[in-house]
Amino acid sequence: MAGFGARLAGRMRATDSRVVIGLDPHMGRIREIPRFAAMSDPDAAREFCLGILEGCHDLACAVKPQIAFFERWGAPGWEALVAVVAAARERGLPVILDAKRGDIGSTASAYATHLDPAGPIGADALTVNAYLGGDAMEPFLEACDRWGAGLFVLVKTSNPGSSDLQDLRLADGRRVCEAMADLVAAWSEGREANDPWGPVGAVVGATHPQDVAALRQRMPRSILLLPGVGAQGGDPAKLRSAFGDDGLGACVNSSRSLLYAWEAADLPPERFVEATRLAAESLRAQLA
Amino acid sequence: MAGFGARLAGRMRATDSRVVIGLDPHMGRIREIPRFAAMSDPDAAREFCLGILEGCHDLACAVKPQIAFFERWGAPGWEALVAVVAAARERGLPVILDAKRGDIGSTASAYATHLDPAGPIGADALTVNAYLGGDAMEPFLEACDRWGAGLFVLVKTSNPGSSDLQDLRLADGRRVCEAMADLVAAWSEGREANDPWGPVGAVVGATHPQDVAALRQRMPRSILLLPGVGAQGGDPAKLRSAFGDDGLGACVNSSRSLLYAWEAADLPPERFVEATRLAAESLRAQLA
Repeated sequence: MAGFGARLAGRMRATDSRVVIGLDPHMGRIREIPRFAAMSDPDAAREFCLGILEGCHDLACAVKPQIAFFERWGAPGWEALVAVVAAARERGLPVILDAKRGDIGSTASAYATHLDPAGPIGADALTVNAYLGGDAMEPFLEACDRWGAGLFVLVKTSNPGSSDLQDLRLADGRRVCEAMADLVAAWSEGREANDPWGPVGAVVGATHPQDVAALRQRMPRSILLLPGVGAQGGDPAKLRSAFGDDGLGACVNSSRSLLYAWEAADLPPERFVEATRLAAESLRAQLA
Repeated sequence: MAGFGARLAGRMRATDSRVVIGLDPHMGRIREIPRFAAMSDPDAAREFCLGILEGCHDLACAVKPQIAFFERWGAPGWEALVAVVAAARERGLPVILDAKRGDIGSTASAYATHLDPAGPIGADALTVNAYLGGDAMEPFLEACDRWGAGLFVLVKTSNPGSSDLQDLRLADGRRVCEAMADLVAAWSEGREANDPWGPVGAVVGATHPQDVAALRQRMPRSILLLPGVGAQGGDPAKLRSAFGDDGLGACVNSSRSLLYAWEAADLPPERFVEATRLAAESLRAQLA
């Protein structure tokens, strides 16, 4: 199998899209859609996400299920997640599992099972939190080498509180997030070396456009996953520097402003797929 | 309900134990036990953990199921986890769910469901990764205030690679892990103010005894969860400074060296409960 960087870049080209549809099932909103009102939470979340995938898959370079919104229901939530991931994969849509996992090596190996094509999830890529350092990353990096998986390491997150730790200034002049970026660059080095983009990407919040250019330079082979457009206020027009010369070096995640677009579009909730299509088309055009 | 700090301290006193039994089901080892050899992985892991709980609960101040080792099996793994957590709670044993979760606020709220007594898990406490900063901690802190839950924030982890980021020196002279400790102290302030120990604890690796004393001083109200004794090489004798004047300010987690103690004890695998009891009694005595 081609490496994750090449697969994602190929999908970006084929769909002419840099849009990642984030699947964050908020039940208060989904319950407004009449056909889901009587279902159990996991069933309603699954059917809602399957509807989005069926109606909008051609507009996205990837989908990003947020595992927390499924895991909160325990086993039935995991069953719904598995169904959603399987539906995305059947459509050739790369799945970035937003799990932000990270632990010492023996435990990280268990989390890396999420990237095993023969495992219960079989995600293409995983978001990871590398506060624990390099040896804790090894099992995830092995998943890249063995299965052609991808990673997105949290570097500079989209929330205001990201400044509390990530913006602290080090004695050597770098900020903590820049030190993390340098680690990401080192983990990326030599992996999928024949492709322009490697399998070790980075999460950089679209809410910090001033950081995007600088972090792009520190991680020349990392695809940037840029969350925070839409509900969190990030402006797509300010993200040009993220994409690199070939335009394939970044993708923009939006979740709430795509999934619940019927509200802003003033459409009835049952037309949610149509509203999401319109919002995704608009975001795709803004990123073109 | 009493706050988590008070509940854990009460259990420490009642059992005269500072031992946390880490539940990390490694199947290669569990398969050596004849009665589990023919079961499915989740069934074998569940029955093994239930056996440990039944035979050893009186020696522990808490148990710490490592969620990764259950989650790797998807929904059946979560069912096993729920059964193990329920069994611990029935015995009055506080459950620290080792999940190392952390995400932006709306997502962290979903993860905080693990601490809801009416939720599918109902853990007493959760390990969290606070790389994302203070606003991402808010839903977890609200769980402390609302449900009497506890948190253990990753400050200085037990693995060698923890130095990659956590030991970097800041311009103000602190290390990154010390800056994280200061955040923990701030989050702890004013919570469960009538108890000596608050609900916001910290993970500090027992493999770094030189750091334990300094970090204890920076987080005067945080119970320290000290992993890394046993398989990772931490020495219980060097942890005295962690416990505070009343001896209730820290607990020591051991997983592999307790669960698979039959190997070092040269006992047949089917006597695993007896071997774990002996190892837990020995660790309890070393910490007395």
